[in-house]
Amino acid sequence: MFVILVYDVGVKRVNKVLKTCRRYLHWVQNSVLEGDITEANLIKLKTELKSIINDNEDSVIIYKFRTKKYHNIETLGIKKGGEENIL
Amino acid sequence: MFVILVYDVGVKRVNKVLKTCRRYLHWVQNSVLEGDITEANLIKLKTELKSIINDNEDSVIIYKFRTKKYHNIETLGIKKGGEENIL
Repeated sequence: MFVILVYDVGVKRVNKVLKTCRRYLHWVQNSVLEGDITEANLIKLKTELKSIINDNEDSVIIYKFRTKKYHNIETLGIKKGGEENIL
Repeated sequence: MFVILVYDVGVKRVNKVLKTCRRYLHWVQNSVLEGDITEANLIKLKTELKSIINDNEDSVIIYKFRTKKYHNIETLGIKKGGEENIL
């Protein structure tokens, strides 16, 4: 499945959240990651994130798509991230 | 069509970009907006954004989906934004 993950977390937790996410997805832009991921890995990622974030302050949104077939991506300005290898 | 728009722009331009985007989409989280939009309005939004952003520094990514059917959204932590009315 293809996911887009966006996060809005306290500054003390940003690095840890980013580092955790980058083990599963690739960085696209400030607080945005995307990539193909298995259901099992997504469960692992969510479990790890839940142990990091503050439920009352932080927000992580995961858009999950069964297929990449029905969407396309357009960038205005520069392309910051990319599909660099993960792990 | 349903879109997710994420932006990573210079601090001097953030307010103007957000204000422009909020006329078409609803704010979800820091630098993330989403919503249903017509092709014509998306073209208008992109034209307005191009006149605001600095092509060499800023990045706006628009994920476009023909249908909402194939995806679902999960939030960890708090839900910051919402479908408040636009305009």
